[in-house]
Formats: sequence, C-alpha cells, structure tokens
Amino acid sequence: MSAIPHWLRNYRRSALAGDATAGVIVTVMLIPQSLAYALLAGLPPEMGLYASILPIVAYALLGSSMTLAVGPVAVASLMTASALQPLAATGSAQYISLAITLSLLSGGMLALFGLLRLGFLAHFLSHPVISGFISGSAVLIAVGQFKHLLGVQAGGHNVLETLAALAHALPDAKSVTVMIGASSLVFLWAARKYLARALMRLGVPAKAADLMGKLSPMLAVIVSTTVVAIWRLDTTAGVSVVGAVPKGLPAVGVPSLQGVGALLLPALLISLVGFVESVSVAQSLALKRQQRIDPNRELLGLGAANVASAFSGGFPVTGGFARSVVNFAAGANTPLAGVISAVLMGAVIAALTGLFHYLPHAVLAATIIVAVSSLIDFETLHEAWQYDKADAASLLATGVGVVAFGVEVGILMGVALSLGTLVWRSSHPHIAVVGRVPGTEHFRNVDRHAVDTEPGLIALRVDESLYFANASVLQDRIEALLAAQPDTREVLLVCSAVNLIDATALGVLTAMESSLRERGIAFVLSEVKGPVMDRLEATPLGMRLKGGIFLSTHEAFAQARRRNQETPAVP
Amino acid sequence: MSAIPHWLRNYRRSALAGDATAGVIVTVMLIPQSLAYALLAGLPPEMGLYASILPIVAYALLGSSMTLAVGPVAVASLMTASALQPLAATGSAQYISLAITLSLLSGGMLALFGLLRLGFLAHFLSHPVISGFISGSAVLIAVGQFKHLLGVQAGGHNVLETLAALAHALPDAKSVTVMIGASSLVFLWAARKYLARALMRLGVPAKAADLMGKLSPMLAVIVSTTVVAIWRLDTTAGVSVVGAVPKGLPAVGVPSLQGVGALLLPALLISLVGFVESVSVAQSLALKRQQRIDPNRELLGLGAANVASAFSGGFPVTGGFARSVVNFAAGANTPLAGVISAVLMGAVIAALTGLFHYLPHAVLAATIIVAVSSLIDFETLHEAWQYDKADAASLLATGVGVVAFGVEVGILMGVALSLGTLVWRSSHPHIAVVGRVPGTEHFRNVDRHAVDTEPGLIALRVDESLYFANASVLQDRIEALLAAQPDTREVLLVCSAVNLIDATALGVLTAMESSLRERGIAFVLSEVKGPVMDRLEATPLGMRLKGGIFLSTHEAFAQARRRNQETPAVP
Repeated sequence: MSAIPHWLRNYRRSALAGDATAGVIVTVMLIPQSLAYALLAGLPPEMGLYASILPIVAYALLGSSMTLAVGPVAVASLMTASALQPLAATGSAQYISLAITLSLLSGGMLALFGLLRLGFLAHFLSHPVISGFISGSAVLIAVGQFKHLLGVQAGGHNVLETLAALAHALPDAKSVTVMIGASSLVFLWAARKYLARALMRLGVPAKAADLMGKLSPMLAVIVSTTVVAIWRLDTTAGVSVVGAVPKGLPAVGVPSLQGVGALLLPALLISLVGFVESVSVAQSLALKRQQRIDPNRELLGLGAANVASAFSGGFPVTGGFARSVVNFAAGANTPLAGVISAVLMGAVIAALTGLFHYLPHAVLAATIIVAVSSLIDFETLHEAWQYDKADAASLLATGVGVVAFGVEVGILMGVALSLGTLVWRSSHPHIAVVGRVPGTEHFRNVDRHAVDTEPGLIALRVDESLYFANASVLQDRIEALLAAQPDTREVLLVCSAVNLIDATALGVLTAMESSLRERGIAFVLSEVKGPVMDRLEATPLGMRLKGGIFLSTHEAFAQARRRNQETPAVP
Repeated sequence: MSAIPHWLRNYRRSALAGDATAGVIVTVMLIPQSLAYALLAGLPPEMGLYASILPIVAYALLGSSMTLAVGPVAVASLMTASALQPLAATGSAQYISLAITLSLLSGGMLALFGLLRLGFLAHFLSHPVISGFISGSAVLIAVGQFKHLLGVQAGGHNVLETLAALAHALPDAKSVTVMIGASSLVFLWAARKYLARALMRLGVPAKAADLMGKLSPMLAVIVSTTVVAIWRLDTTAGVSVVGAVPKGLPAVGVPSLQGVGALLLPALLISLVGFVESVSVAQSLALKRQQRIDPNRELLGLGAANVASAFSGGFPVTGGFARSVVNFAAGANTPLAGVISAVLMGAVIAALTGLFHYLPHAVLAATIIVAVSSLIDFETLHEAWQYDKADAASLLATGVGVVAFGVEVGILMGVALSLGTLVWRSSHPHIAVVGRVPGTEHFRNVDRHAVDTEPGLIALRVDESLYFANASVLQDRIEALLAAQPDTREVLLVCSAVNLIDATALGVLTAMESSLRERGIAFVLSEVKGPVMDRLEATPLGMRLKGGIFLSTHEAFAQARRRNQETPAVP
C-alpha cells in the first residue's frame, strides 16, 4: 500500500464531473445533518461541522470504498450521548473533552483491529440483531427529539419516562416553536414522500428529482432561519436557536486521555456498530459497480477518520447510509467527491457560521426525526418472522432491549442473542437414523423414507460439525437409541456433513468409543472429510478406529451385513 | 415425575450393602473435605458440615445420577470466596449471610434453568476452556493455602502478589506449624501415590487398597489433632487450630435477600461451572453402568441442593469429582448412599464437633493442596496442542486469565473465548472450487485433484452452514473469483454441507443473486438439503432461483455444458 491511494494516482479527468456534483450535493445534505447530529450527541453545533472535514479526508486516503460518505451519523451520535451522559453534564467542557476522547479511542480500536486483520469481528452481529438495534435506536432518537419540537425541557432514562415527561411538560409548549417544528416535520415528510414524484411530473428527470428531494432539509433550514431572523422569534417568541457558532477552522490539538477507563466499552460498541453499518453500506454500493471492499482496509479508514475527528475537535463518525446512497446516485466516482465536500465544509466554517445563528433547534429536531424514521425497519422483522422464528425473536428482543434499557445494554443483548442463537442452533443438530434406499447405494432418514436397515446396526447421520456446543447431544442421542435397541452390536456415524471435530467433541467421541467397546459395541465412521480425517488420524481415537472408518456408508453397511451372516445376533 | 423418586420406589434390598459401604467411606472423606472447603471459602468450619447434610438429601430426591456425591467442592468454594471478598470482611456476619444468599441465588438459578429446560446452557463452555479454568483455579487455590502451612498472614490480589507476600512473611513462619503442615503434605502426597500399591503388595485386594488410599486425609486429621491436643500445641507453639465448632444440627432458616444485586453474576458463574463439572462427572459414571443422565433433572437436583444448603446455613455446593468416583468405586448403587452419608454427617455434627477443636489449619490446607494438585491438567493441554492449536490457545488463555485476574474474569474470558473460537472458525469456512473427476459424476476440489471444469462456470462447495458469521466471507470469495474470471456466466453453489441458511445469510445470498443477475451472471444451487430447501422455497430468493436449484452437481454441470454448446462464450 503506497502513501498515495490508488484512486488518486490513477485519477482520470472524466471522473471529475461526477465527483464535483456529488461533492456539492452531499455538502448541502451534510450541513443540516452535521448540526443536527451534534445536537443529538449533546454537543455544540460547530463540533458537527468539525467532524465533517478532516475525517472525510482521512477516510479518502485509507478506506477502500469509492463512494462511502463518512461523517456524523444518527446512531453513533446517540451512542455518544448515551456513553457520556452518565459521566458529565451534557454540553459541559468535560462532556466535550470526553466526546473527543471517545472518538480517539474508537478510532484507535478500529485501526488496531484493521492492523490485526480482525475484520471478522463484524460477524459477531447477525443481520436481524443489527436491524433490531437500528430500529430501536431510531425510536429512541425520535422520541428524544420531541422536546425540541415543543420547546420544553423533558427527559428520562427510557422511552416511557421520556414520553411521560413530555406529557407532563405539554402545557409549557411554546406555540411558535410548535408551529415551526410541526410545519418543518410536515414539509420534510411530504418532501421525502412526494417531492421527487411531483418534480418528475413537471418533467425533471427521475434521478435529478430524487436528488432534489434529498435537499429539502437545506430548504427547511434556509426558510426557517430567515423567518426567525426577520421577526427575531428567538427573543419575541422564545424560539430556541443554534446561536453563535464559532467561526474558523478547528484547532488541531492533542485529545486528552482523561476518563479513558469508563469509555473503553462504549468506544468498542460504537466501533463495532459503526463498522458493521459502514461496511454493509459500502459493500452494497461497491457491488453495483463491481468494485471490491476490503473489510480490514475499511477498519483502517474508519479508524483514521475517527482519530482525525478527535484531533480536530470532532466526535465519533462513521459511514452514513443516507449520504452514501446520495453520493453514489449523484455520480461520485472516487473519494475525491468526499474531499471536495470537506473543502466546501471548510469554507462554510471559515466564513459562513454566522448564517446559522437563527436556525431553530426545532427544525434540526424535525430533520433528525424524518431521517431516522426511515431507519425503522418492519420489513426485516416480517421477513425474518416468515423465514426463521429464532432470528425474528433476536430482532425483536434487541429492538425492545434498546428501547427499554438503552443502546449499550441493547447492543450487548444483541451480541449475546446472536451468539446464543448460534450455540442454541448448533446444540440442537439435526440427527437422522439412516437406512439404505432399496436397490441403491443411497442412505436416507428412516423416518422420511422406506429404507432397509441392518439388524444390530444403528446408522446415524449428524447434519452439523461436532464441537463443544453439540457433542454431548450426539452422545445423549446415541445412548437413548442404545437403550431402546439393546441388541445393538455396532454404531455407525455418517460424517458427510461434519466439517470439523473440535477438541471437546473429540473427547466425547473418545469416551463414547471406550464406553461402547466395554459394552461389546463397535463404533465406526463413514464419509469422513479429508481435513477432518487428517487431524483425526493422529489421535488415540483415530488409531483405535483404524479399520473402522469407511469411505462410504455403503461399505460400512456391507461389512455389518457380512458380520451378521457370519455370527448371527443372539435374539 | 412422582414425589417419591424412582430409585426409592423400586429399592431392592440387594443394593443396600453397596450403598451402606459407600455411604460410610464417603463420610470419612467428606468430614475433612467439608471442613477444608469451608476454610477455603473463608467460612467457619460448621458451615462445611451443614453444606454436607440437607443438600445431599435434596439432590437424592430430585437429581438423576445414581452415584454423584454432592457437597462442598474446591472450585465452587474458591469462587464463593472470590465473590464475597470484595463485599464484606472474610468470616464476618455479613460475609456469612452473603454466602448463604449466594447459595440461594445459585440454587434458584439452577432450578429455574432446569424448569425452563436450559440444560444446553452448559454448552457455552468448551472442554479446553473448562480444563484451563479448573487448572488455573487449582493453582490459585493451592497458592492461597500456603499461608496456613507457614502459619502466617499473607494474601494478594493475584498469584504473584500472594507469592511475594508469602516470601515477605517467611521469617515469621511458625516452626511447629511448618512441621505439621510439611509432614501432612508429604504423608498425603505419598499416600496418594504409593499407599494403594503398598497395600496391594501386602495382599489387600486392588479395589479395597485404592479406597483405603482415599481415607488418608482422615488419618492425617486424627493423628495431627491428637498430637496437638496432647501437647496443647495451639497455646505452647501457636499452631492455628479450628477451635470450637458449634454442636447441633443446623437451624433451618430463611436466608436474607440483602446484597442480591452484587451476587447475581457470581451466582450465575458458580451455577454454570458447578453444573458443567457435575454433569460431566455424573455422565461418565453413568455410562459405565449404562445408566442415563438427564441434564435438565440435574439442574433441578443441583438447584434443590443449593436451596437446601441456603436454608440450612450452608454455602454453594455441587457434584464433586473425587468423592463421586470414590462413591461409585465403593459400590454405591443408588442415592441412598448419599442419604446414609448425610445421616452420618448429622450424627457427627450433633455429637462429635468437639473432636475438631485441636485440628490444625495446616492439615486442612495440606488436604486442600493435595486434592487440587490432581486437578492441574497438563494432559488436556498437550492433547489439545497436538490436535487443535485454537483449542489449546483457549485453554492456556483461560488458565492464565484465572491465575492473573481471578476466577470471575477467568471464566468470562473462557466463555468469550469459546464463543470467539466458534465464530472465528465458522467465519473462515473451507470453500473449495470444484470440478468433475473425469468419467464420473463426482466433483472434487480443483486444487487437490485433476478435474474437468466447464468454461464460464464457477462451481463452489462451502463446507459450513451459512449464517451471520460467514455469509459475507462467501460473498467476498465469490466476488474475488469473479474479478479473476471476468468471463464467468454462471456461479454454482454446491450446498451438500450446508445444514442451515439463517436470515443473515439469506439476505446476503439474495443481494448477491440480484447483483449477479444485473451483471448477466446466473446464480444456481445444487444438493440443497431437505430442511434447508423447505424454508428457501417460500422466500423471494427461492422463487427467483426456481429452475436453478439442481438435485445433483452433475445435473448443474450438464446444463452449463448444454448452454455452452448452444451459445458459446465470447472470448
């Protein structure tokens, strides 16, 4: 890997038009989003802007996706708030310092995982669990923003408490704020739903109409800010506004390492969730253009982005779904689109922050609510329910866990559920007693097919690798069969679906073979795969089984029949 | 399940001789062990005796093993001490109350798991991890007892600190205590190693000689107590002794529920470890007599034993390895052996506790050290190293984790490692590109065999079920192959080893099929198993694949060839 990324060394002029268009459009989306997600994270608005400059450049240099748009995103911002609120007063100097440290830690972890090539860590989360987590987070985020729409103070430790506090604070709602918030909400929702279609009817090409629909939040920002500024609604009607945003590029500085201990777990969770989300977006976009994503380089790119965010006064960032899709659709060919966006954001912060003074919080809240409402995903739940009840249950439990206990407990529940489902599934392997389909060399489940069996022989096919989660289940099944068929002289294990025998399972098989041997019952195997056989051969069990491992189930049956003919079983 | 257990309703007189012999022998073993493990748990000696009466009876009524000996054991006692020491001063009234609560919680959890039929929870721990945990705990326990051999006060947060404290306290060692401790240690070690052999040479039958070897701790107790009592070494030479042990049966009382919160995790870990150990001992003994163990009834039995322990002033108990083996070898036929043992223990505590007054702590420490030294298991490490480096690494890491960070962190590391290994393994599935063995209908790995391939067709066999841990790895592999073979017209996935496709993998396959279709590449499957097919059929992917799912790989190749003949690929 050279210091100059591949896309830059081989940059073609033909890519520039697409990159520039995408860069401009993403910037227009990014301005309100970066302010809104800073608000969501409990941080001053300029930190959202800071987090949208250097991180994008860092990712462009190290990441592997051509179209991923990195920056502040809703779920990571919520997780940031949730990690920091127990540690410091929201918005205080310590809170800000901890947010920067969190970004540094998260970036350090991601980069370390990348260097150690631990991209597989993303696999600890199943798709249903992620879906449940995102949906639950979206509910949390949306409910948490209602107070800004009403112009009141109201919070709680969970959704129910927050709703109760909101109901209680309702009489204090500020009417002008409510009007601004409600009209923004209706406008943004209608724009999302109908604007593209309306523009198409007016003759705008589909793609352009779609992109213009994405710019409605900026329109809401401009109109509402203008209205508030003209009538000074902040003082005359108590509309809460963003206020003074410091002008000037972020000071690059070394983040503090204070409070690292309490931030380790949150940083890990933010890294994990951010990485999983980011990679899945990057992957789906790359596939459409037959490009490739390297998960380990993604870890490096996202790690560098977060470290850059920390050094320039930002907070945790990752690849966002909505902006990446827009970036792709607007024609981004290379990360230069992101770099252009970063330069534009730099220009905004260097000169134009004064324009945000009268931007009402209610409009940012409406932006957040409309953005996250599309994250609530009932379709995956429905599909999972149809396809696999266990997966649907994980999804629901994770979603409910997030809403009831917050993001950290929710994501930990999700990891536990993913792994629990995995262990539970493999601890209940499909085990079939098989017999020969008459006149063939094929063997099938005796419960499903009319097959021939051999007296004194129990032939079992286990449809799972044998490891700690299921080895004793196999043993139990064999003992149950032996108890039911006391005249058994041989137990045959058909290993066609056994891709691995781990040390635990080897121990169980070894003990079982000894126990069967003591009872005068032979234990034999068939269809052992090459890699499994390679390992098994050198073990004491492998040596004792020598001559009892058959290439095919057919041969094992043939031998059992020969033995039955030579020495008929005593009834 | 009737209220009267099966073994009792059908009790045969012929079983009584064996049960009575075993009951007496186990009692003689149990007396020093129960005192020693109470010492190890940091509790007064009578609590060890209490934990050896009602829990045995409760297990006899509800458990499923005929020969498991339930009571205080080394590892659970260590875990008890480790859970309580951060919460209260060792041996204080609060400490004792917390120990009782811990037993109640652990019992309640075990019983609940039994009622919910969660016996599969035991599968969260792989055999190597358990081995590492037990070995590490044995080291911790042995090192923790050295202070009693020296007659000094010395402790630390980990093994290194404890050893340093011991070295520092060495000048204060009490010479008579050291002599008693050292001679007990040498005697017990020699008895364990040579006594049975020596007795056999003197004409004692092998089995009897072996059992007599197990009684040497009682002999050490009797001799040392007598010596200390005659010369009053407790006052003349400062030998630390057990002292007054309250006489009388335990008062049955309702345990306090104070401090439950802090005890939940320790209780869960003690339950888990105790259950896993207990079931594996019970299972291996049952197999020798062709009996069956029901893991869910074991949970109930052990749960009841711990609840009984709590209500009679004891501490966490479980099935012990050493005593169960002796019980079995001494001829126990039914849990009546345990009941006899409980009655004898009741008699001891009702009348004979005065005899323990002069029992030196050094002898109990020597008993513990010799007992746990046999738990340190290098053989499993050696075997695992030979067979599977990943398993050996989990074992080592868990063992080192216990020694360095204590039992709780150690066991949690163990669970994480077991699951991590599982995910890591299945996230690196064996994926082979296959071709036809010339002249056959068999298909083999192109890297291992001289096989024929079909131009434009990539045929892959994945040797693993497809689920969240590996679905994207398959996708990456396919994309990498497509990048290397841009003239591909069809991707065939041979599913002979795929026992499950979970919702995550279904999502990945669905997205992949769409992406391939957009690029004009067909995606087809072969050898899909019945249960997998049943589910797949109803999904959107299943419908799109209709006609592209072949019973055999042979048919899939035949169709690819036909297509190649009809419409030859453009070079």
